[in-house]
Amino acid sequence: MPRPEGARAPRRDVIDNPGSQRVTRVAALARRGQRTRHGRFLVEGPQGVREAVAHVPAHVLDLYVTEAAAQRHVGLLDQAHAARLYVHRVTDQVMAAMSTDAQGLLAVVSTEALARTAGLDEVLAGARLVAVLTEAQDPGNAGTIIRAADAAGADAVLLARGSVEVTNPKVVRATAGSLFHLPVISGLELTEVVEALHTAGLTVLAADAHGEHDLFEVDALLAQPSAWLLGNEARGLGPEALSQADAVVAIPVFGSAESLNVSTAAAVCLYASARAQYAG
Amino acid sequence: MPRPEGARAPRRDVIDNPGSQRVTRVAALARRGQRTRHGRFLVEGPQGVREAVAHVPAHVLDLYVTEAAAQRHVGLLDQAHAARLYVHRVTDQVMAAMSTDAQGLLAVVSTEALARTAGLDEVLAGARLVAVLTEAQDPGNAGTIIRAADAAGADAVLLARGSVEVTNPKVVRATAGSLFHLPVISGLELTEVVEALHTAGLTVLAADAHGEHDLFEVDALLAQPSAWLLGNEARGLGPEALSQADAVVAIPVFGSAESLNVSTAAAVCLYASARAQYAG
Repeated sequence: MPRPEGARAPRRDVIDNPGSQRVTRVAALARRGQRTRHGRFLVEGPQGVREAVAHVPAHVLDLYVTEAAAQRHVGLLDQAHAARLYVHRVTDQVMAAMSTDAQGLLAVVSTEALARTAGLDEVLAGARLVAVLTEAQDPGNAGTIIRAADAAGADAVLLARGSVEVTNPKVVRATAGSLFHLPVISGLELTEVVEALHTAGLTVLAADAHGEHDLFEVDALLAQPSAWLLGNEARGLGPEALSQADAVVAIPVFGSAESLNVSTAAAVCLYASARAQYAG
Repeated sequence: MPRPEGARAPRRDVIDNPGSQRVTRVAALARRGQRTRHGRFLVEGPQGVREAVAHVPAHVLDLYVTEAAAQRHVGLLDQAHAARLYVHRVTDQVMAAMSTDAQGLLAVVSTEALARTAGLDEVLAGARLVAVLTEAQDPGNAGTIIRAADAAGADAVLLARGSVEVTNPKVVRATAGSLFHLPVISGLELTEVVEALHTAGLTVLAADAHGEHDLFEVDALLAQPSAWLLGNEARGLGPEALSQADAVVAIPVFGSAESLNVSTAAAVCLYASARAQYAG
């Protein structure tokens, strides 16, 4: 059915005005203040959207998709329709106005999806592996650590006050959907975290370049239920955090590197724990 | 010695014109074309500058420092002066015009610092651990992998054609100086790399989520001199790369994550090798 070029009929069901109030409001969720005010955040890209639809469908408020993305992700849209989600077709221009990192697929999700439905003690009951971000301020690192913790089989990720906000779009993107796989709890005091970890019977390990223990020589310790305290990108863990740990563990450095990126260090530590716990 | 506000005398030896040709030329090195044309690149921030001064002083063409940074990094500047480097004081405005990520310290380094002084066979002679980036396109990931390879004691990092350019400021920053610690060789054909690895007696391992071997069950393999092929951020390793590997190894996933970030995967694989080789 050929149609003369330029004569394509406008489709009523496609959102095509990049300046509309809806589009502006979605784009505004890139800003923290707007996310807090409206209790919603952005999930950009097919991987994150797929995991939101699969794991927290009741909290997916709107899903936006371009024509091209709709053709690439038929199964995902079928799932979204089956879950009775609001799926909106948008033009490429509208998508670009809402997000530059969505690859054609964008979800607006209620922050209820991340709300604490249980007390910290309940979340930690029976936990064998937990990651604690004490002052992770780079959103990419924080998201990557949440994803690595998920892969390593962690039971929860806890973010102490001073860490980046988890609904930051860069954090959400870097988690690649892992944000919806395990409890990710923010805004905690570190002393409260350590107390709850101890109550739940977990050993509190600090990852620090000057640690007294070598990561590769403490398998018996790692085989126990334990939590990793992870520090700031530039400064590592502060004295307060170090003093609260039951053991301070260093990743051995075999080359000339002075230190490791915090997300690299987190991955190596969490996988050392997973190996000791599962493969032992 | 109080001086009335606003009456601070201009100092001749401080570069204070953000619009000068020198400043514009330095800032232009953020662009690949300018780096190639002039054979120089930027090293931003104290950690990278310190490692450049320590490891490749002959290739550090200019060093720029603000007053505040000069006070914070006295030892580093002493080293720079001892190496007879050109150290230029700049105003905060000039630094901001040259780089927004320098934290007061910026070096312009000749690409000669990264030039191949030896053939690939010579670099790989006696090597026990090598990282090969086949199509790493995210600069942050590529730099983080170079840093992790350094820490894990790798003898070299090889970048096959299709990978990001290593003098990209984001790559340089993410290496945190490791770029100057071990040979980092770019622009290679993957077949050429695999041939050279085999000639040097290294086993070629591919990191892939669908690998036939479990990373935690192949310590005997990892204890051998070996190289890790690492794939693209989104697509992983292509069929061509997988077919050239001697073994395809998967990192076990214990949670719900579909996959790992490539820099996370690289760190876990490289450290599994380091553990098998050094701690065994």
